[in-house]
Amino acid sequence: MDFSKGHGTENDFVILPDPEVRISLEPKRVAALCDRRRGLGADGVLRVARAGALVDAGVLPALPEGTAADDWFMDYRNADGSIAEMCGNGVRVFAHFVTAGGLESRDAFVVGSRAGGKPVQVHSADATHGEVTVDMGVVRELGESTATIEGRVYRGLGIDVGNPHLACVDPHLTAATLAALDLSGPGFDPGFFPQGVNIEFLTPIAAGAVDMRVYERGVGETRSCGTGTVAAAAAALRFDGADSGTVRVHVPGGAVQVRIEDGRAALRGPSVLVASGTIGDHWWDGLD
Amino acid sequence: MDFSKGHGTENDFVILPDPEVRISLEPKRVAALCDRRRGLGADGVLRVARAGALVDAGVLPALPEGTAADDWFMDYRNADGSIAEMCGNGVRVFAHFVTAGGLESRDAFVVGSRAGGKPVQVHSADATHGEVTVDMGVVRELGESTATIEGRVYRGLGIDVGNPHLACVDPHLTAATLAALDLSGPGFDPGFFPQGVNIEFLTPIAAGAVDMRVYERGVGETRSCGTGTVAAAAAALRFDGADSGTVRVHVPGGAVQVRIEDGRAALRGPSVLVASGTIGDHWWDGLD
Repeated sequence: MDFSKGHGTENDFVILPDPEVRISLEPKRVAALCDRRRGLGADGVLRVARAGALVDAGVLPALPEGTAADDWFMDYRNADGSIAEMCGNGVRVFAHFVTAGGLESRDAFVVGSRAGGKPVQVHSADATHGEVTVDMGVVRELGESTATIEGRVYRGLGIDVGNPHLACVDPHLTAATLAALDLSGPGFDPGFFPQGVNIEFLTPIAAGAVDMRVYERGVGETRSCGTGTVAAAAAALRFDGADSGTVRVHVPGGAVQVRIEDGRAALRGPSVLVASGTIGDHWWDGLD
Repeated sequence: MDFSKGHGTENDFVILPDPEVRISLEPKRVAALCDRRRGLGADGVLRVARAGALVDAGVLPALPEGTAADDWFMDYRNADGSIAEMCGNGVRVFAHFVTAGGLESRDAFVVGSRAGGKPVQVHSADATHGEVTVDMGVVRELGESTATIEGRVYRGLGIDVGNPHLACVDPHLTAATLAALDLSGPGFDPGFFPQGVNIEFLTPIAAGAVDMRVYERGVGETRSCGTGTVAAAAAALRFDGADSGTVRVHVPGGAVQVRIEDGRAALRGPSVLVASGTIGDHWWDGLD
């Protein structure tokens, strides 16, 4: 069973090329593969197959919106084995992988996901480094709310990017004071976000860039969150009274660039492929 | 650059076969390789080469005690890039790897380490699973001392297995109460252990087995510690008034068997090889 290991701004993935859809991704196998000591270790698994083949195999009930049968499809699994609809960092690594591996020869194509087809543009893709822009779709403002850390209240803007975010731009934050925040469990208004919320804390825009940290719902702080950088850029622009523009977002795992225009977002950033090889058949089969 | 990924009771390693000693293991490269998001991720790196070749290449100043020039040598690096003399779980995985890969055809041989040659016996070794006994050498008792968790004092036995341990057998502990202990930073007597100490908490022997958790000096709690299981077994036997015997030690990462006899210890346990492949040259060279 072939694999590659890669990451987008330190959100890391095991990539499983599986054109014939032969691999059975039971949750316990995915969890073992993503276990950082027992397995290879990753935040998630990206199975690479054509959308039509996944429908034929019964993995997908039908082609998602905006996805054609012969589009490459990112079959994303979380580290616990559950399914996630979409991952902005994952799509970059996915597009890099299919391009670098010669599976895809076009610069611009659609990557299918359970949240619909995502148009991508591959700016560069050698065997190790890639640079990809993903169309992240509609960004919808939900109104103002607040987050709390150690009793201090941060004003933020609720933003829906397919999932809910609360992006808190604080003019008193600097890169240093941001780094010192305790992000172990920020408070939020459960009346406003009954399903929970991902929370970003960031500096205002200076020289076109912001520094951001993110607390992901159900996970805790992470090194990077694709939709979180989009929410942060939208909130930072709004903080300056703008509704469009380009913002460079620095996260602990690196930096990406977000373009907001006409209520839609494009996320541009790096991808790195570290290694590739074979997972032991015996090991995989022994996970039964 | 070829690699394999494996673990011994969830103490995990990137294995780098390097018979010609061509790989330059600068600390920052090792740290990037062991980074669990930027790299492949591991607790440490095991370079596989003959001891003599490592001396010729200047990696070793001289052959360590008990190590011949044509012995396989485990050139161990910690995840931060620093050198460690020895790792009991690593030696098992190392012996499994050289046997499964056809580099070594004998069942019993010596694995060189900076702490001297370690005789091993390979009981089984297929492409995925191995079972190996390592001669861990002399076990020396240092006398009684105590550890403290949340104000509660645990009596323990100081034990030197090449590194210092304080193994606390507590008759009031059960598997459940052991699992509930806060091992974030147990207290110890710095007068007794001026260089710090690895601390084990364990149940007394029941049906030949103990449950143990370990706090490693400079690291925190880990899933398994080879020398720690040896110290635990020695202390558990002593708690029963015995100075020799065989104890099965259950740790969070699995189980091993320790035989204490004539003041020496043999550690027997599993090894798992998960995957193998190639690390991108571009990626590795880019770490400069």
